[in-house]
Amino acid sequence: MEKRALLYEGKAKRVYGTSDENIVWLEYKDSATAFNGEKKANITGKGRLNNEITSLLFLKLKDLGIESHFIEKLSETEQLVKKVTIIPLEVVVRNLAAGSFSKRLGIKEGQPLSKPLVEFYYKDDSLGDPIMTEDHIEELKLATKEEVAILKKNALEVNKALSAFFAELGIRLIDFKLEFGMDANGEIMLADEVSPDTCRLWDIETNAKLDKDVFRRDLGNLTEAYENILARLGGKQHV
Amino acid sequence: MEKRALLYEGKAKRVYGTSDENIVWLEYKDSATAFNGEKKANITGKGRLNNEITSLLFLKLKDLGIESHFIEKLSETEQLVKKVTIIPLEVVVRNLAAGSFSKRLGIKEGQPLSKPLVEFYYKDDSLGDPIMTEDHIEELKLATKEEVAILKKNALEVNKALSAFFAELGIRLIDFKLEFGMDANGEIMLADEVSPDTCRLWDIETNAKLDKDVFRRDLGNLTEAYENILARLGGKQHV
Repeated sequence: MEKRALLYEGKAKRVYGTSDENIVWLEYKDSATAFNGEKKANITGKGRLNNEITSLLFLKLKDLGIESHFIEKLSETEQLVKKVTIIPLEVVVRNLAAGSFSKRLGIKEGQPLSKPLVEFYYKDDSLGDPIMTEDHIEELKLATKEEVAILKKNALEVNKALSAFFAELGIRLIDFKLEFGMDANGEIMLADEVSPDTCRLWDIETNAKLDKDVFRRDLGNLTEAYENILARLGGKQHV
Repeated sequence: MEKRALLYEGKAKRVYGTSDENIVWLEYKDSATAFNGEKKANITGKGRLNNEITSLLFLKLKDLGIESHFIEKLSETEQLVKKVTIIPLEVVVRNLAAGSFSKRLGIKEGQPLSKPLVEFYYKDDSLGDPIMTEDHIEELKLATKEEVAILKKNALEVNKALSAFFAELGIRLIDFKLEFGMDANGEIMLADEVSPDTCRLWDIETNAKLDKDVFRRDLGNLTEAYENILARLGGKQHV
């Protein structure tokens, strides 16, 4: 596989073409951003950690029968994935109240929800990624009602699989954000990444935060938290 | 019917008990508020106008087969209504994009929607009335799925009736907010008010705003706009 031109640069990743038109080459960056890009930093090692963790989690999901765009890890910071058109929705699953959800609805952080709750946010930085109802999604033609139902079902399946897997590692999966894409055949598949950048992960015993909230809220050393997750996943650590 | 003690004072109305435990006495105030109470004014005549307009509209809705809490107008600023427990949701119906909806989703104000769209907001000033998905409403136990379906159906029926009625008067119903209550028998019924405070009403020919946006956006004389609506409804004007 040959790496070709840069197709797109996002906040956390660069996307390159390859010699296969159905495959792209991802490079994870060391940049950390929060609050719609208002808070920014460069954190050495973050790209490697998210690439390693995402690769392990997509492999684990595949073992559990959940397909994604992931093909293979190429290096510490690179992976090959299927080329998809990203559906411009952040699909959030919440098991316990935290973050913006807590603030918006006045529910104490850490309170368990009666059942996993799925939310959709419009991926649009200029609008600040507003929360969307299913009617909004239909009105803006971001996805059909049928596609929304698929996204919701898939997101809840990922939640079931990841919650159980993280629990085995002594980690509580509080909430997470997924993105889905559509391949050339119109098939919807899990895409983007699954990492401490996109999941809230709390130690089951201590409730220590092992995710991007360490950066958002200045709670300590981000790479230490991410190394902790990688170690529990059995991944290769840098000491 | 005898007026008894003040039960509750809201931003726009005072609610008094009566000698009948199933009936309350509403008094419309002259206060105008916007942006979650950040902008405030006292506008002489506004209470009278909203009481007159709401009374006429609830009577019109009754003619069209849509029941509400409204019993009768008592005076220029007072009316008797059935006592209900207000469901803490603002039920918004939108026919054209405007206001917060336009800003939130990046849709030009005045753009027609492909079909009437219903939104729910949590009536909680301390949280700034956040928009709610049906799952949020269920999680917070504000209403059951079945009740949400009833609210949505009723709101769309009110929209159909009011849109046609206003169109006859040369007015475009852009969007509006309803509140519903539950009576002692657990029956859901339309409550609160229907007025230029709670509806966006534009002149069909000129697109002149004949609603609270005149106050929100400092577009001119609010009582003139509301008198215009009352006149078209055939109500008694003060000249």
